Amino acid sequence: MESQQGSRHNEGGMSQLYRPESVSLAGVALFAAIGADEVQARATVDSLVTSSLMGHDSHGVIRIPEYLGFIAEGSILIDSSVAVERTGPTTAIVDCGRGFGPVGAERAVSEAVNIACEQRTACVITQRCNHVGRLGAWVQVAADNGMIALATCNSPIYGHFVLPFGGREGRLATNPIAYAVPTGGDPLVADFSTAVAPEGKIRFYRNEGQSVPDGWILDADGSPTNDPNAFYGPPRGGILPLGAGAAHKGFALSLLVELLGSALAGISSKDTEVFGNGVCFIVIDPAAFCPLDTFRRLMDETVEYIKSSSPAPGFDEILVPGELEFRAMRQRQVDGIPIDATTLQALCEHGSRLGVDAAGILKRGEMT
Amino acid sequence: MESQQGSRHNEGGMSQLYRPESVSLAGVALFAAIGADEVQARATVDSLVTSSLMGHDSHGVIRIPEYLGFIAEGSILIDSSVAVERTGPTTAIVDCGRGFGPVGAERAVSEAVNIACEQRTACVITQRCNHVGRLGAWVQVAADNGMIALATCNSPIYGHFVLPFGGREGRLATNPIAYAVPTGGDPLVADFSTAVAPEGKIRFYRNEGQSVPDGWILDADGSPTNDPNAFYGPPRGGILPLGAGAAHKGFALSLLVELLGSALAGISSKDTEVFGNGVCFIVIDPAAFCPLDTFRRLMDETVEYIKSSSPAPGFDEILVPGELEFRAMRQRQVDGIPIDATTLQALCEHGSRLGVDAAGILKRGEMT
Repeated sequence: MESQQGSRHNEGGMSQLYRPESVSLAGVALFAAIGADEVQARATVDSLVTSSLMGHDSHGVIRIPEYLGFIAEGSILIDSSVAVERTGPTTAIVDCGRGFGPVGAERAVSEAVNIACEQRTACVITQRCNHVGRLGAWVQVAADNGMIALATCNSPIYGHFVLPFGGREGRLATNPIAYAVPTGGDPLVADFSTAVAPEGKIRFYRNEGQSVPDGWILDADGSPTNDPNAFYGPPRGGILPLGAGAAHKGFALSLLVELLGSALAGISSKDTEVFGNGVCFIVIDPAAFCPLDTFRRLMDETVEYIKSSSPAPGFDEILVPGELEFRAMRQRQVDGIPIDATTLQALCEHGSRLGVDAAGILKRGEMT
Repeated sequence: MESQQGSRHNEGGMSQLYRPESVSLAGVALFAAIGADEVQARATVDSLVTSSLMGHDSHGVIRIPEYLGFIAEGSILIDSSVAVERTGPTTAIVDCGRGFGPVGAERAVSEAVNIACEQRTACVITQRCNHVGRLGAWVQVAADNGMIALATCNSPIYGHFVLPFGGREGRLATNPIAYAVPTGGDPLVADFSTAVAPEGKIRFYRNEGQSVPDGWILDADGSPTNDPNAFYGPPRGGILPLGAGAAHKGFALSLLVELLGSALAGISSKDTEVFGNGVCFIVIDPAAFCPLDTFRRLMDETVEYIKSSSPAPGFDEILVPGELEFRAMRQRQVDGIPIDATTLQALCEHGSRLGVDAAGILKRGEMT
């Protein structure tokens, strides 16, 4: 994980480092100025700033201007509320009302944790849910409450860039899976696309004028290519499922994510009118099987055992899921979080439009 | 899926095709002769014969002589029984008593289905469970009852051939994940190792004197190799997790399988005394979210949509998880199931020892 003082080069040009508190302040002020509920604005901004702190800039602060744009164009509704329908002893459907995705996701996982506290297992799905940010953030909420959580997140047909195994036409989204598990220290938090790579990374290679690695994409004829333009077309190619020679496994995982987000919610995979991400949370209370203290101790043993493997050539150590992110967070709490020039400009422009001195707030948070 | 009349060449030498009914008859007679409960023997043999019918010979009839050997050496106990402990409103621990693995697995998934009928979700884990055969068979039991099921299966430390991402010493087993989902027709049934390949396939390459494909194994120094002997050592190398360049994802999945089979069951990953596979079943009733008929119809739409992708060069069609297996089953119900010469000989030798005319029973079932 990179860590440099002051500034660094990344996807959106030169970056400047800022105190996370100042970024949060600016973000909440911008969302409040556009008319959002302050509690919802704070929850949303906190989740995005935390993603940046954890090193996931692609799901972090750069989304603040994006969400402001979505509000302006009406795809994020700021006058909506989240409605929870308990559909059985251990299940619920959370209608996120096309509001802030992070608000809907937090409500859904909280409901699942509450159910699992009583019933030991729970399954909660979302409807009409906007972009939830980093899926790992929400399973971590469960692990922070002593629960094991799995989550999946699909996207509607317009995001179906990923090829079924053996196919050359996209039928699935990049469909992440996340899980979190409590330990005696930081929880394990895994969060990954079931495709070989997310679309955003291919866009990055295209923008940089570079070739993408072998085994990521096919062109529209179904032939392997390293040219990101051959993926975007038109005609469009596709992203391969995870697994290289064993990509039928990544495909199977992606299909599971798809059906938990669509058919389970009563939605057709082919529906062109459906809105937003279909998120499914499955939460299990480990204390149903093993006292939580024992479970935490055993998890610590497992982590220690895994990390005790000698590294292969080219590696310094074995990292467990989430470890890199927690390290980045501790480092960036000290160093600040990077905001690239494009994102900074977008924040300032929204500020000018909304009468918020975003530039001034951020200026006071600059790390020198 | 291969399908030839009479005989074919495979892993254990020339094979002869047999009627599944005759194979079942011989198998049950052998287990009964060694003293097993006939109901348990029948359930076990049925599951193994079904695996062979579905094309998974590695988890099929070849296991009958293996299980007979395990009984003889005392690692499968035939005088044990399965005990179910409900540990909460939606959870249970199934102590399989070191009996037949398939008997324990069937009991565990049945308990999970029964709980989910009442509570909509369930999580059931096993202890002291022998080899369960094909994990997909057990999630299919749930799908046949209109439920969505996920299952994971770990192995104790002596089976830790799989490398953590970035490591060169095995810390995980090949740790399969399976799921099954009802549709209007055959259920989706996925079942795959979270390693790039199971150990048995590497053994096959070694026995054939062939190189293994790129990206499967490292030698003991952590360098990529195609030599299966460099994996077996000594010193032993390791199998890579699923995902090639993105093998941190396969590693994360494998670690999830490990902890659901060990820490969740109150067992240390490093315990050298622990016995058998740790299986975890998570069952969800789709009817908690969407009427089952609607769910089945939407699943059919999803399957049709996925299969409507044009195939890439080198592929004839898109297959969904389980489709190949159901096709194989229909074909082999007509053609018979193959038994290789080594397995046939082992069955006959066990027959001679136990006073069962296995050779005669099988002879009557030969397909000509």
